[in-house]
Amino acid sequence: MSQASPLLIHDAAELVTWAPLVREGRRTRLTAADLGRVVGPAWIAMKDGKIEAVGSGAPPSAYTLYKKMDARGALVMPGLVDSHTHPIFAGTRAPEFARRLSGATYQEIAASGGGIRSTMRATREATDDELLALTSARFQRMLRLGVTTIEAKSGYGLSVKEELRLLRVLNRAAAKTAQTVSITCLALHAASPEFKTLRDYANACATELLPEVAREKLAFSVDAFIDAGYFTVDDCERYVAKARELGLAVRVHADEFSDAGAAQAAARWGAVSADHLQFAPPEAIDGMAKANVVAVVLPGTSLYTKIPFTNARAIADRGCAVAVATDFNPGSCRIDNLALVATVAAVQGGLRPVEAMAGVTYVAAAALGLEGRKGALVAGYDADVLVTGVSDVDEWLADFGATAPRAVVARGALV
Amino acid sequence: MSQASPLLIHDAAELVTWAPLVREGRRTRLTAADLGRVVGPAWIAMKDGKIEAVGSGAPPSAYTLYKKMDARGALVMPGLVDSHTHPIFAGTRAPEFARRLSGATYQEIAASGGGIRSTMRATREATDDELLALTSARFQRMLRLGVTTIEAKSGYGLSVKEELRLLRVLNRAAAKTAQTVSITCLALHAASPEFKTLRDYANACATELLPEVAREKLAFSVDAFIDAGYFTVDDCERYVAKARELGLAVRVHADEFSDAGAAQAAARWGAVSADHLQFAPPEAIDGMAKANVVAVVLPGTSLYTKIPFTNARAIADRGCAVAVATDFNPGSCRIDNLALVATVAAVQGGLRPVEAMAGVTYVAAAALGLEGRKGALVAGYDADVLVTGVSDVDEWLADFGATAPRAVVARGALV
Repeated sequence: MSQASPLLIHDAAELVTWAPLVREGRRTRLTAADLGRVVGPAWIAMKDGKIEAVGSGAPPSAYTLYKKMDARGALVMPGLVDSHTHPIFAGTRAPEFARRLSGATYQEIAASGGGIRSTMRATREATDDELLALTSARFQRMLRLGVTTIEAKSGYGLSVKEELRLLRVLNRAAAKTAQTVSITCLALHAASPEFKTLRDYANACATELLPEVAREKLAFSVDAFIDAGYFTVDDCERYVAKARELGLAVRVHADEFSDAGAAQAAARWGAVSADHLQFAPPEAIDGMAKANVVAVVLPGTSLYTKIPFTNARAIADRGCAVAVATDFNPGSCRIDNLALVATVAAVQGGLRPVEAMAGVTYVAAAALGLEGRKGALVAGYDADVLVTGVSDVDEWLADFGATAPRAVVARGALV
Repeated sequence: MSQASPLLIHDAAELVTWAPLVREGRRTRLTAADLGRVVGPAWIAMKDGKIEAVGSGAPPSAYTLYKKMDARGALVMPGLVDSHTHPIFAGTRAPEFARRLSGATYQEIAASGGGIRSTMRATREATDDELLALTSARFQRMLRLGVTTIEAKSGYGLSVKEELRLLRVLNRAAAKTAQTVSITCLALHAASPEFKTLRDYANACATELLPEVAREKLAFSVDAFIDAGYFTVDDCERYVAKARELGLAVRVHADEFSDAGAAQAAARWGAVSADHLQFAPPEAIDGMAKANVVAVVLPGTSLYTKIPFTNARAIADRGCAVAVATDFNPGSCRIDNLALVATVAAVQGGLRPVEAMAGVTYVAAAALGLEGRKGALVAGYDADVLVTGVSDVDEWLADFGATAPRAVVARGALV
């Protein structure tokens, strides 16, 4: 990445800054006032990868020598933050998707070698460079859609050695892209073929994998898929305890298919996020709210697989912060358009427009522990800026992610 | 439009031709065999706006002098046919969408001047040239998404004079675009402010509007919104009878919110299509199947407004042909990505992959009375061809309309 020259985006129709949230700290029950709108003609100045200032009217003469970008008629907002993706894998499960649409059950598909196992096989067979190329191409697609920060999980290696390999390749992909990538070790994504029980694999990850992850600084957080048919809370206790001991943040695939006690455990573990949550009971959501766990809803997966949409409204109404992410992955959600997913979260999950927009920017950054530098347009924050293809917040929502951004700036660099 | 030079698309991964459907006539209960796949390396030759031939292997030397396009790795299929759109309007209802997401009811929005009435006002205030520019831009967006044939409705004029004006502008837009546009007079879209009752307006349309529509050849078909709170079947009888007398085809917005007897009437009227159909009873579907009425399902509207998804599976299982369309309009569905909508019809409506793909190509052409020249890649058909951005049918379905086509050919011309 080349050092970006100072940049001034000017004459925007309006800016969404989230300045009130930055000032007063993360909270729920957002209103339009929280958008921190700067009315047009609005400008934003960036230097050394950081936001210097935002304002309305004629830009100060201090910026005369800055590179200029005309944002006439455009809503300008923080770069999108996708707080839940599975971008490193090889192979395709499109034939499986088609079989499912033709009436095959998950069980039939799994029995014939499909499902996550098939992605694991293809991923293990791919070289590091192949995986790097695939992952980088996916990051690029997301970047063009306006995503400047990505949470990226391993999880298709399913052995200590293969998960380490995926995490190392993810770090290479992160170093290559203009985006900021927050890496998660999702070793506990499914059963490992090398272990007799889920518990045995989980414990091996705790004792062999996580210390190496911490030593090489390969990830910010760990994750585990806790649900009926997957890991139990008990299976994960040692893994989570080791992660916390090593200073790794914790997140959880929680209660997507059943109430497996995962949301409740996430609160107890002080997780940064608990994700999916279709079947998390109200008291678990209350616990999450109290423990400052962000609820990450993933309506793209519901659209893709016809599982219920998470009732995001009910979660927000209990005072729990709600982020919205794509869950991009080969099996249950190939949708990588976060703006589309934000609107689906509003329509099908009941989020207010301001909540949906915060859910893919400021609150999503909070789910990554990055709310101090990502997801808002205020001085000192990273210069991750979206010049959208629409004119205001309402149009952005109603657009369902159809109109490409006019420009994307990642850490001060126009991409 | 300039006359297109002869064109050869070669080395495609595969072609979907629908040749079996063309050979044996429209039918339901489609299987993968109906795709009429030509395996790669596949080619298609076009001349004078028509398909000359398709084949597999090395193209014959007869095409040596044709302009060439390499489709290496790509699925090539018929251009998409969007069989239900409302593309001519001014103004925006994004603020209304946002208000609805914030908890306002339709009634509250209508009472404060929103809803279809607000689009009517903005549309009436717009000049012909403004409406032409807006409509043309919408056609261009759809073209880039691969839509080479569009059914386009009037309906925001809501008076004899204004509906005529919109139909004339639609004809100008149709003449300007590379696409084929099938125009529909949807005068009976909602109440007219100039008439005391819906019936009075409907009868005025029958006696004053439709003869002029026929005289100027402004439309292929007429349409009416029959549902609770809109027109009744009885309201529409004179309008439909007049349309049939004048040789105009009939289509119906049918039973979207309630069983209003519209699907049943569509069968009795010999309509080319009945659209929406959430609440159409099974016996009405049977009547449609018998009368060769195409069922047009519009899952984008359900995604956009959270009304139920039409059970397309149940309709297809009763032997009724199912097309899939966007319903693109300012109020209840701004989604114009037909490929996205096709996959949603499969996941949420239960269509098989082959049915969803046919629903936006061959069966959609049938809904426009164009199955003799659109929606299939066989010799003599219009050269409307999509070089997709994916490699096969399964990938196309799983892609949710995210990957732009590599190339779009409309009536032989590369656009």
